[in-house]
Amino acid sequence: MAGHQRPLFVLFGASMTQYSFELGGWGAALTDLYQRQADVLLRGYSGWNSRRALEVLHELFPKDIPRQPALVVVFFGANDAAVPVKSGRGQHVPIEEFKENLKKIVIYLKNLTPTTRVILTTAPPIDEKVRERIGVMNFGKRAIGILDRTNENARKYAAACKEAAAETGVGVVDLWTSIQEFSPCWGIECLTDGMHLSVSGSKVMFNELRRVIETANWVPSLHRDFMPTEYEGGHNRYDYVHPAVDM
Amino acid sequence: MAGHQRPLFVLFGASMTQYSFELGGWGAALTDLYQRQADVLLRGYSGWNSRRALEVLHELFPKDIPRQPALVVVFFGANDAAVPVKSGRGQHVPIEEFKENLKKIVIYLKNLTPTTRVILTTAPPIDEKVRERIGVMNFGKRAIGILDRTNENARKYAAACKEAAAETGVGVVDLWTSIQEFSPCWGIECLTDGMHLSVSGSKVMFNELRRVIETANWVPSLHRDFMPTEYEGGHNRYDYVHPAVDM
Repeated sequence: MAGHQRPLFVLFGASMTQYSFELGGWGAALTDLYQRQADVLLRGYSGWNSRRALEVLHELFPKDIPRQPALVVVFFGANDAAVPVKSGRGQHVPIEEFKENLKKIVIYLKNLTPTTRVILTTAPPIDEKVRERIGVMNFGKRAIGILDRTNENARKYAAACKEAAAETGVGVVDLWTSIQEFSPCWGIECLTDGMHLSVSGSKVMFNELRRVIETANWVPSLHRDFMPTEYEGGHNRYDYVHPAVDM
Repeated sequence: MAGHQRPLFVLFGASMTQYSFELGGWGAALTDLYQRQADVLLRGYSGWNSRRALEVLHELFPKDIPRQPALVVVFFGANDAAVPVKSGRGQHVPIEEFKENLKKIVIYLKNLTPTTRVILTTAPPIDEKVRERIGVMNFGKRAIGILDRTNENARKYAAACKEAAAETGVGVVDLWTSIQEFSPCWGIECLTDGMHLSVSGSKVMFNELRRVIETANWVPSLHRDFMPTEYEGGHNRYDYVHPAVDM
């Protein structure tokens, strides 16, 4: 097996995907885990919601290119769940549409090949105290008591994401729950600004994603222990020999 | 421009490439830098020398696949430069052959497409005191005073690598020099075991690689400032709006 025949993993989401190769990021950790086994491609688009993702899905995942993904991690919702604003602009997507968008995305991706797998990811919880402080820092006193995102909304959209996964038969990383179970100080430890992942939050994402991949009942398995390693043993002729023990 | 049309960067080398997505690794940093601009693929094979690389080059970089690299970073030499052992086994490759192998690799890769660029990388310097201590730890007293790698060899192979780059007209990251310029304690700070890159060493690699890419006289440029960003501005309809300032 040479490189271009490796299984292809695609990370498709908004900012928490786009920034997943920063220091300590979950995308880099996944790439490291699957060294010599799978290729990981980054398809992260800061600011995007599920509506925008659905709109260009056919461009990002064309049906007619030869190399199709073995796995797509779909990670939208943090922007969909933003509090709606009066003007109707902004990132908010109504929850019913959000769930339908996710289901449409999953169905499209699953149809790319008979063995293309999809994992949905819920957005992390919101630390509302931090969000309010950031609002006041950016917009002054008029932002006191006003939130752009709430944890109750995050909970509802996470539930809708899990329903979309169940109804389409795909796996789900429930980051909303996992991060709140991490520690009582999850907002400080796992998030940088009350919503985006810190290094610890990214570690939770990586561990949960890995667990979902490794416990899935997929044929062929995408558990690294059951996947070929490229040119394994092929360099035996050139194995390390220390001069002091050369025989 | 959708994802599969992005320029493709391939990182082709031995262990220092294979492990380049570890925490603080240069491969992850490069992927992060080119988010929404280029795809980065990892082709790192621990233990390999230039002979093994040349042997399977046509498998790893087939001429007949549609998506060809815009840039290949070629990073061999640390194993070629290993001290030869009596039995003739092991990783060592004679310096003349090493230089010829690199040149053949470069010429093959440059011929993939008219705009495929190649950057060679010299292996880092060797901290001989650390290498000796590790030898003694692993093999006992018989390894006292015996080195598996020397910095003088590393210097010679780095020079051969630079000659190969000059003679084929491609860029070069001179890690052997850059790391020794990092600080008087480069062996402790930039290397983990007297030869492989620490987080600081990886940072030197990333900075130098970036500098070589950004100062190259390539058309089209692979400097991120002159490359398109996928769907830039495309999410304006969904730009962030804070409820307190919605109008």
